[in-house]
Amino acid sequence: LMQKMNDLRTPALVVYKHKVEANCERMLKLAKDHGVTLKPHFKTTKCLEVAIMQTGGTKCGMEVSTLVEADLLAENGFENVIYAYPISPHKTPKCAELSEKMKSFVVFVDNVAALKALEQWKLKDNKNWQVLVEVDTGAGRSGVQIESLDAVSLIKEVVKCGNVTFSGLYSHCGHSYKCKNAEEIKEVGKMATNKMLTLVDELKKQGITCPSYGIGSTPSCSKPAPEMSKLTEWHPGNYVLYDLMQVKIGSCEIDDIASFVLTRVIGHYTKGEDVFLIIDCGWTAISLHGVKDSEETSGYGLIVDHPELKLAHMSQEHGIVKSKDSTKPLDLSRYPVDSFLRIYPYHSCATCAMHPVFYVADQNDNIIDHWRPVKGW
Amino acid sequence: LMQKMNDLRTPALVVYKHKVEANCERMLKLAKDHGVTLKPHFKTTKCLEVAIMQTGGTKCGMEVSTLVEADLLAENGFENVIYAYPISPHKTPKCAELSEKMKSFVVFVDNVAALKALEQWKLKDNKNWQVLVEVDTGAGRSGVQIESLDAVSLIKEVVKCGNVTFSGLYSHCGHSYKCKNAEEIKEVGKMATNKMLTLVDELKKQGITCPSYGIGSTPSCSKPAPEMSKLTEWHPGNYVLYDLMQVKIGSCEIDDIASFVLTRVIGHYTKGEDVFLIIDCGWTAISLHGVKDSEETSGYGLIVDHPELKLAHMSQEHGIVKSKDSTKPLDLSRYPVDSFLRIYPYHSCATCAMHPVFYVADQNDNIIDHWRPVKGW
Repeated sequence: LMQKMNDLRTPALVVYKHKVEANCERMLKLAKDHGVTLKPHFKTTKCLEVAIMQTGGTKCGMEVSTLVEADLLAENGFENVIYAYPISPHKTPKCAELSEKMKSFVVFVDNVAALKALEQWKLKDNKNWQVLVEVDTGAGRSGVQIESLDAVSLIKEVVKCGNVTFSGLYSHCGHSYKCKNAEEIKEVGKMATNKMLTLVDELKKQGITCPSYGIGSTPSCSKPAPEMSKLTEWHPGNYVLYDLMQVKIGSCEIDDIASFVLTRVIGHYTKGEDVFLIIDCGWTAISLHGVKDSEETSGYGLIVDHPELKLAHMSQEHGIVKSKDSTKPLDLSRYPVDSFLRIYPYHSCATCAMHPVFYVADQNDNIIDHWRPVKGW
Repeated sequence: LMQKMNDLRTPALVVYKHKVEANCERMLKLAKDHGVTLKPHFKTTKCLEVAIMQTGGTKCGMEVSTLVEADLLAENGFENVIYAYPISPHKTPKCAELSEKMKSFVVFVDNVAALKALEQWKLKDNKNWQVLVEVDTGAGRSGVQIESLDAVSLIKEVVKCGNVTFSGLYSHCGHSYKCKNAEEIKEVGKMATNKMLTLVDELKKQGITCPSYGIGSTPSCSKPAPEMSKLTEWHPGNYVLYDLMQVKIGSCEIDDIASFVLTRVIGHYTKGEDVFLIIDCGWTAISLHGVKDSEETSGYGLIVDHPELKLAHMSQEHGIVKSKDSTKPLDLSRYPVDSFLRIYPYHSCATCAMHPVFYVADQNDNIIDHWRPVKGW
């Protein structure tokens, strides 16, 4: 399989294995140091090889966003998989199959109707559904609002519901994505944790024991507030690769970013006052997630080691690279045709979603493996 | 294989076969009526079944944007494939392989350096490279500027270059995407055509015969200016599916859109003053291409038969659907959990790029086929 990175046909998504390993190990250690269980999310890469690293080789305790991810893990000996997505009646039969097949498959509910659908679907061998209640600690997406009376009343329904075991509380603190530095991240993590602990206490007063309660998001778990040691679980996902967005939020350093799009310069253009390169990275290779063209930004990604460049525009297969400073036109001779550029993605989850194969590199830029993500739903 | 659409796991990309057929037939007829050859682009679906329809069953004259598309067509008996992308030296060996394998494989050049790389790579059996010169009629992307002296001098280089046959001129009039109605589209088509014809005349005066000269883009070919009958070729691509962007440009009617994302309502939420549905269509299912949330637009897509709704926000697997008119809160009871919504994509090329399988439906909403696009580069 051994191949040199510079022999790859471009565009190609390259993943540095040593960086993924370092990111996985760092997060496992952070969780351990805080006395919590890491339940890592699979959604960013959806590659089996990464799930093994994320669990430190235990193959236990992954979270998924789609049922094909769950199937892949189930078929490969993983246990204790959490389907971290609100279950709805149509998906109940497939979730029943996974619940019956695996030692532990955990589903989310955030409303009574979904719970009632589970009660009515009896699992084989008198197995119970394992149910986490999704609570909203401020992200404003799915989950029952943690401060509302609905939260306690839904949990009471879960506890008394037939065919169901109450597994605990889960919250994705997605509002951490609005942060701009580690202090802001820690404030979000602290507030979300405190809300969670308040609910756990309230349940205790009412005689309900909460087996697990966790929050997660890559920012809050990468820069954890001390309070987060009082939780039982964390569940970040993007940290395996990180990206420019996480750097801007304050979750990581730029050198922690573990993937990039490898692209070649395919042409030099001077059209009127417009001087630009075309590269073979269009939106099919990196996605349109990102910050649109402006004087202040590097565009849809960061061109590694070239602070003078920005990815200004993309069509399906063409990327237009311009001078970041519009008063300094590009010296095209610095970027010969066929020379390489590396682009850090703004949002690595989105970039991964565009690629059928990830080219795995070692520190010497040898391609040592090909990882194939599971696709679809 | 027969399956009912409503049994599909969601999200799913559904393609109405009869609409794709109608779009393909209409474009073939339009080209025929204008006396030009249709050289359809494969980039939107990248599904073999669609290429067959696009060529009216002849399997002749497709254009591709990636080399894996060319491989797929070559392996399936297609002939006269145009690699509609600027060739660069790294891709020359693979293009040589395709040129040697197929009866006709045509490449693009828009600069002398790329041409010289072809001259130096001799094909087997004394075969010549077939070369189209890409000219820029106003789109401002790749291609040599048609009014510049560089255009004529590059073409002269091609004509006298060893191992190379001059196949003609090609222009993607991408500036038609800025149009807002058929009249504006026709003006762009007319101007691009006239520029092309001026160059063809100039070449003739200099003793150079131009075997083919075409322009293309779905807008300009869907609403052709009368002048476009003087070209030899058209090369649109998106027309096979169309999308909301094409409706806004004026290329088609909304009923011509041949694909949609099928999604289910998975939850009802009332959070403070925010009332919304969550659907199982996130950006992994439709892409983030589109018009961002505003009072005037339907967001990232158009929710079919529900003018009161907009797709306001998406995360990886969650779509947030709100009332388009913020003064009229949603009546959630109208959209039961598990009920379906259909979303027309803003940009169908981008939506197709997110899906490993297209579910092909007949007029009775039976799923009659699964099409699998080729992925990668």
